[in-house]
Amino acid sequence: MTSDKTASTPSPDFRFSRSSAHAPGAPVLAIVGDGQLARMMQQAAIELGLSARVLAGRPDASAAQVAADVVLGDYRNRDHVDEVAKGADAVTFDHEHVPNEYLDELIGWGVNVQPQPTALIHAQDKLVMRKKLREIGAPVPPFLAIESVADVQGFYDATNGAVCVKSRRGGYDGKGVWFPQSRQEAAELVERLLAEGVELLAEKKVDLVRELSAMVTRSPSGEVASWPVVESVQRDGICVEAVAPAPARGGDVIDAAEQLARTIVADLGVTGVLAVELFETVDEFGQPEIIVNELAMRPHNTGHWTQDGCVTSQFEQHVRAVLDRPLGDTRMTAPCTVMANVLGGSADPEMPMHERMDEVWRRFPGAKIHMYGKDWRPGRKIGHVNMSLPLGTSATAEAVAKLRSDAQLAATFLVGAIWSDGWRGE
Amino acid sequence: MTSDKTASTPSPDFRFSRSSAHAPGAPVLAIVGDGQLARMMQQAAIELGLSARVLAGRPDASAAQVAADVVLGDYRNRDHVDEVAKGADAVTFDHEHVPNEYLDELIGWGVNVQPQPTALIHAQDKLVMRKKLREIGAPVPPFLAIESVADVQGFYDATNGAVCVKSRRGGYDGKGVWFPQSRQEAAELVERLLAEGVELLAEKKVDLVRELSAMVTRSPSGEVASWPVVESVQRDGICVEAVAPAPARGGDVIDAAEQLARTIVADLGVTGVLAVELFETVDEFGQPEIIVNELAMRPHNTGHWTQDGCVTSQFEQHVRAVLDRPLGDTRMTAPCTVMANVLGGSADPEMPMHERMDEVWRRFPGAKIHMYGKDWRPGRKIGHVNMSLPLGTSATAEAVAKLRSDAQLAATFLVGAIWSDGWRGE
Ligand SMILES: Nc1ncnc2c1ncn2[C@@H]1O[C@H](COP(=O)(O)OP(=O)(O)OP(=O)(O)O)[C@@H](O)[C@H]1O
Ligand SMILES: Nc1ncnc2c1ncn2[C@@H]1O[C@H](COP(=O)(O)OP(=O)(O)OP(=O)(O)O)[C@@H](O)[C@H]1O
Repeated sequence: MTSDKTASTPSPDFRFSRSSAHAPGAPVLAIVGDGQLARMMQQAAIELGLSARVLAGRPDASAAQVAADVVLGDYRNRDHVDEVAKGADAVTFDHEHVPNEYLDELIGWGVNVQPQPTALIHAQDKLVMRKKLREIGAPVPPFLAIESVADVQGFYDATNGAVCVKSRRGGYDGKGVWFPQSRQEAAELVERLLAEGVELLAEKKVDLVRELSAMVTRSPSGEVASWPVVESVQRDGICVEAVAPAPARGGDVIDAAEQLARTIVADLGVTGVLAVELFETVDEFGQPEIIVNELAMRPHNTGHWTQDGCVTSQFEQHVRAVLDRPLGDTRMTAPCTVMANVLGGSADPEMPMHERMDEVWRRFPGAKIHMYGKDWRPGRKIGHVNMSLPLGTSATAEAVAKLRSDAQLAATFLVGAIWSDGWRGE
Repeated sequence: MTSDKTASTPSPDFRFSRSSAHAPGAPVLAIVGDGQLARMMQQAAIELGLSARVLAGRPDASAAQVAADVVLGDYRNRDHVDEVAKGADAVTFDHEHVPNEYLDELIGWGVNVQPQPTALIHAQDKLVMRKKLREIGAPVPPFLAIESVADVQGFYDATNGAVCVKSRRGGYDGKGVWFPQSRQEAAELVERLLAEGVELLAEKKVDLVRELSAMVTRSPSGEVASWPVVESVQRDGICVEAVAPAPARGGDVIDAAEQLARTIVADLGVTGVLAVELFETVDEFGQPEIIVNELAMRPHNTGHWTQDGCVTSQFEQHVRAVLDRPLGDTRMTAPCTVMANVLGGSADPEMPMHERMDEVWRRFPGAKIHMYGKDWRPGRKIGHVNMSLPLGTSATAEAVAKLRSDAQLAATFLVGAIWSDGWRGE
C-alpha cells in the first residue's frame, strides 16, 4: 500500500489481533462484517484448520465473540477495510455494503477480493441486476427505472396497478419494498422517495404461488456446485422458514431453478455462494413459471438448513470457494430438512434464552438450535432451528407438514417462551 | 475465592481475555486444555450461542487459535486453573491430567467442575478403574497390582505368559503399555519401571477379535444418551480408524457394549462424555465376549465420526452435558460413517497441507476434513477425515469396505501427499 495511506492508518490498538490466531502455513481469510454469517463462516473455517480475521463494528458483535483476530472498525472506512485485508489470502463479506471503490482499490494493490465488485454490483443495485438478468435471458418481472412521478404513473397504467416500487440500493428484509394500493398512492410515494434522494425502480407485482431459493457456489477457477432448491416462506419481507428440498408441485420449475442459478453464477462471474431468490407463479397458459426476485452473494438465510441437512454447508462451501479450493458434495443427508428463523419478538420473555433452548431440546431432542450470541431486539435475527426427518424415513407430505410445524413450534418457543400449540409436557 | 489466593494470582497480562467474548446472559464454559478436543468443543459451543474460555499452554495452541477468551497458563499450576475457572458456569477438560486436589479445592469454593474428581479418578488410574469395574460387575481382564518383580513373575506363571504390563497413570496412545515376550523380560521391565518410580499393574493379554468403543453421555441431572457402538482400529496403540456403526459379527456383544457403557457412566457418576474402549474376544465356549480396556471422560477419538454421521456430535453433547442441559438425539444421519486419523508421518512432505486437502477434495468431494491447526510432528494427531455412505444407500459389506478404504486413502494422502493405491486422477 502506498506511503500516504500509512499515515492515515489507525493505530493498532483498534485490533484484538493475535498473530497466533492462524495455524502455521494456513491461508488467512478476512471477513468484512461481524454478523451471524461471519460467525458461521468462522465456525466452518475452524473445522478446516483455518480461522477468520473479522472486521467488526463492536467488540461484542456476533462474529467478534468467536474470533481471535478481530479488527474493530467500520466497513465504510477505507483504512479499516485496508487493515483487515492486509496479508489476507482472500477477503470476503457477510453483507454487500462495502463501497465498491474501496474494493477496486484493494484489487489494484493485488488483494484477492471474492466476490469481486463486477459481480457484487448485481447484489447491490436492483436496477443493474434486473437489466443484467434480462440481458442474459433470465426471467424477471417487467420493470422500469423510476425517475419521476410520471414514470410510475405510466408503469401503473401499463400493469393495471400491479406495481411494486423498490429502492435500487440498501434494501433488506423487505425494507425498501412498497406496494402502493392506488395510482394516487404510487404517485405520492414516489414523489416523497425521490425528494429524499432514494433511487427507485418499479416492477410488476407478481402473483406468487410460493417463493423458492436456488443456491449455488462458484470458485474463481470456475468450479460450480449447486444445492437442492428450497421453498422459502417470507413474513413481512423476512425469511421465516425454508424447506429442503422444495416440495414438488408438478411442472419442472425446480430443475429449471437450479439450472438458472448455475447460469447466473457463471454469467455474472460470481464467486463464493450465490442465492437466487425466486418467485413461483403461473403463466398465462396456467403453467408454473419462475421469476428471479433477488440475488445475494454470500451465505444466505435460505441456506442455513445446509448446516444440518447436507454434506457441505453453505458456510464451508463459501470459505472453500473464496479461497479457490475445490468445492464439496452438496447432496442432502436427510430426507427433508426445515429451517425456522428465530426473530426477536415484540418483547423479550423473562425466561432466559438458554432455558428456552433447554425446553425446546426436552421436547425435540433432534432440534439443531443455532444461536448467534446476539441481544434481543424486536424482529432481529437472533438464531435459527434446523430439524430433519430421520434416516430411513421418507418425506411424505404428512411427514414434511409435521416437521414444518415442529420447527415452527421450536422457533416460536425460542422467541416467546410459549408453546403455540398449548403443549404442557408429556 | 479466599483473599490469600488473590495475592498469588498471576497478573492479568497472561490472558488474551475479552469480556466481549461471551454472549450477554449466556453461560460461560471453561475448558482446561488447548488441544483439538477443546478446539472442537469451542466449535460446538459457537453454534449454541456460547463461546469457551480456554486454559492454553501456548498462544498458538490448537484451541487458543479459535477462542477470544484465552488464559495462558499451565494446568499443573493451581493459580492458572483458578484463573480459568473464575466466574465460569462449568469447568471441563480436554485431558485427564489436572491434579484432583486442585479440582477438589475448586469444588469446595462452589465451582461447578464436570466431570468431578470422584469420577475422573477412574480415567486417571488404571488400577483404581480395574478395581471399580470389577466391583460393579463389568467384564475386565484378570489383573494384579505390581509392586515387585515377584508379583509380575507370579502373574506371568498364572497367565501362561499372556501378560500386559501397564503404568497406572499418565499413559496415552499406547505409551505406558508393554507386552513382555518372556518371564525374564517381564521381570527386567518391571524392575526398571519400579526403580523409575512408575506405578504398575499387570493384566492378562487378551486375544483380540477386534476393538470396540461404546460412547455415552450423562448430565449431572442424570440424563443418559448413548451413541451406536463403533469398531475402532489401533496401530501401535493409537486409534487410526473408527467405523460407525460397528459391523455386526453375530452374537449380541454390540447391544451389550452399549448397555455396559450406560451402566458404567451411571455407576461411576461420570458427567459429560464417557468413552468405554472395549476388546471383543472369544470366550472358552467360542462365544463372542467383550472386556473393558480403558475409560476416557471427555470427547474421544473414536467419537469424531459423530460430527458428520450423527444428529448430535460428541462435542455438542459434552458441552450440553457439563452445563447440565438436555442431551441431544444420538441417531445416525448416514448408513455408515468412517473416521480415519491424520497422524504426522515420519517426514512432512513438501506439498503444503492445504494443497493436500485440495487433492483429497478433488478425488472425494464428500470427504469431511477436520484439521486442528497443528504443526507437523511424527505420529502427532493433526486432523481426521470423516466419510459417510450417502443417503439412500445401504451399508453392505462391500460398501463399508470401500468406504473404509477411501477414508484411509484420504487420510494417507493428507499425511504423505501420496495416493497409496497409485491413483493419478481420472
Ligand atoms: N415483484 C414482486 N411481486 C410480488 N411480491 C414481491 C415482489 N418483489 C418483492 N416482493 C415481496 O417482498 C419481499 C421482499 O422483497 P425483496 O426480496 O426484493 O426485498 P429485500 O429487502 O431485498 O429482501 P431480502 O432481504 O430477502 O433480499 C419478497 O420476498 C416478496 O415476498
Ligand atoms: N490386556 C490387553 N490385551 C491385549 N491388548 C491390549 C491389552 N491392553 C492394551 N492392549 C493394546 O494396547 C493398546 C493401548 O492400550 P491402552 O488403551 O490401555 O493404552 P492407552 O495408552 O491408555 O491408550 P488410549 O490413548 O487409547 O487410552 C490397546 O488399544 C490394545 O490394542
